[in-house]
Amino acid sequence: MIFDVFGTLVDWRSCVAREARAAATSVGVAVDGDAFADAWRAGYQPAMEAVRSGARPWVDLDVLHREILDAIVDGFGLGGMSGDARADLTRAWHRLDAWPDVVAGIERLRERYLVAPCSNGHIALMVALARRNGLRWDAIAGAELVHEYKPKPILYLSAARALGCEPAQVLMVASHSWDLGAAAASGLRTAHVARPDEKGPGLGESAPTVAVDLAVASIGELADRLP
Amino acid sequence: MIFDVFGTLVDWRSCVAREARAAATSVGVAVDGDAFADAWRAGYQPAMEAVRSGARPWVDLDVLHREILDAIVDGFGLGGMSGDARADLTRAWHRLDAWPDVVAGIERLRERYLVAPCSNGHIALMVALARRNGLRWDAIAGAELVHEYKPKPILYLSAARALGCEPAQVLMVASHSWDLGAAAASGLRTAHVARPDEKGPGLGESAPTVAVDLAVASIGELADRLP
Repeated sequence: MIFDVFGTLVDWRSCVAREARAAATSVGVAVDGDAFADAWRAGYQPAMEAVRSGARPWVDLDVLHREILDAIVDGFGLGGMSGDARADLTRAWHRLDAWPDVVAGIERLRERYLVAPCSNGHIALMVALARRNGLRWDAIAGAELVHEYKPKPILYLSAARALGCEPAQVLMVASHSWDLGAAAASGLRTAHVARPDEKGPGLGESAPTVAVDLAVASIGELADRLP
Repeated sequence: MIFDVFGTLVDWRSCVAREARAAATSVGVAVDGDAFADAWRAGYQPAMEAVRSGARPWVDLDVLHREILDAIVDGFGLGGMSGDARADLTRAWHRLDAWPDVVAGIERLRERYLVAPCSNGHIALMVALARRNGLRWDAIAGAELVHEYKPKPILYLSAARALGCEPAQVLMVASHSWDLGAAAASGLRTAHVARPDEKGPGLGESAPTVAVDLAVASIGELADRLP
């Protein structure tokens, strides 16, 4: 069983908004933390697309997050932030909190299945999130294994391989239909977890827009419904 | 903190010998399990060298172990073993038991350090050994991250990176001086764990033959001596 992380397991928006507000306050600026988080996240897919398209070699999300940060600070009146402050704020993505259902749900699933993140985040970032939240993984799959980004098929296939499984033996769990559609196209089973408020109130996916094997409201419900 | 696995954490020789004896008995043949394990392991470095030298693309240890097995069965009167039986015996390497000091020692170290295997074994093999023995890792580094084999420097450097560390912040723990020498050459700190009986009574390394930062008799002693 492999899991998307940002949005599916951890609440990036509230946590990044909180850290952005604090960083701004420390330099005497007031920012709309939610808008800051949204602007930061808006740069995420285009930044990865530069890697996916082959326009640049793979770099990890710390690099991409920093580049996006550097591109948005001026618009929030934070152009004067020091390099150290920017580096620290970039690491806000290492300090995200899990949604309340996640840790206990994965612990239950872990009794029956091998579990691993399959994230566009690199291994050190996954390690930080696991330590912060008390998540226990069997392995860490994802972007750093193959130096590519989802939804490239190699991400899903290499994750299955890392667990010693055929693709059809693996369930990909995510809150994003684009991710699940790509996993299904690579032969994995898929489960959608509703995170209706991921991108702001009512702005996450409350239901999948692609065919999935299972759709649930929480990781706990996933543990309830699987054998 | 990163760990070699075969020999350092798990007792490959006794476990492979036991499985080889059982596999032979099931087809009515008596084999010297220890000799069989030694013959199998003797093919290990040459098989990896074919990858390290660039003579063949990276393949995982399941593939190499099977090839070596196929090459030695005749010499033990086991040439008639079926393909399924050979596949099962190859997976003996997924069913190795940890030395008695390992699980508790790593659990203690884990309270203070990030911990990961840095093995020539692939991720699925590390997952199997972790599940079997109750080892709890933060990440799984090693050969599959970079499709190379130790002692290539990229193994140690990629393991440090996976934990978000500079090489000098990482301690490589192993029972083999060749491994520690290579790690030190890549800028890591090193600790030697004596496994004097790894390759048979008195045939393992009871002390390092290269300069190391620390030499201990067990993982528990390592936990005792580190801050």
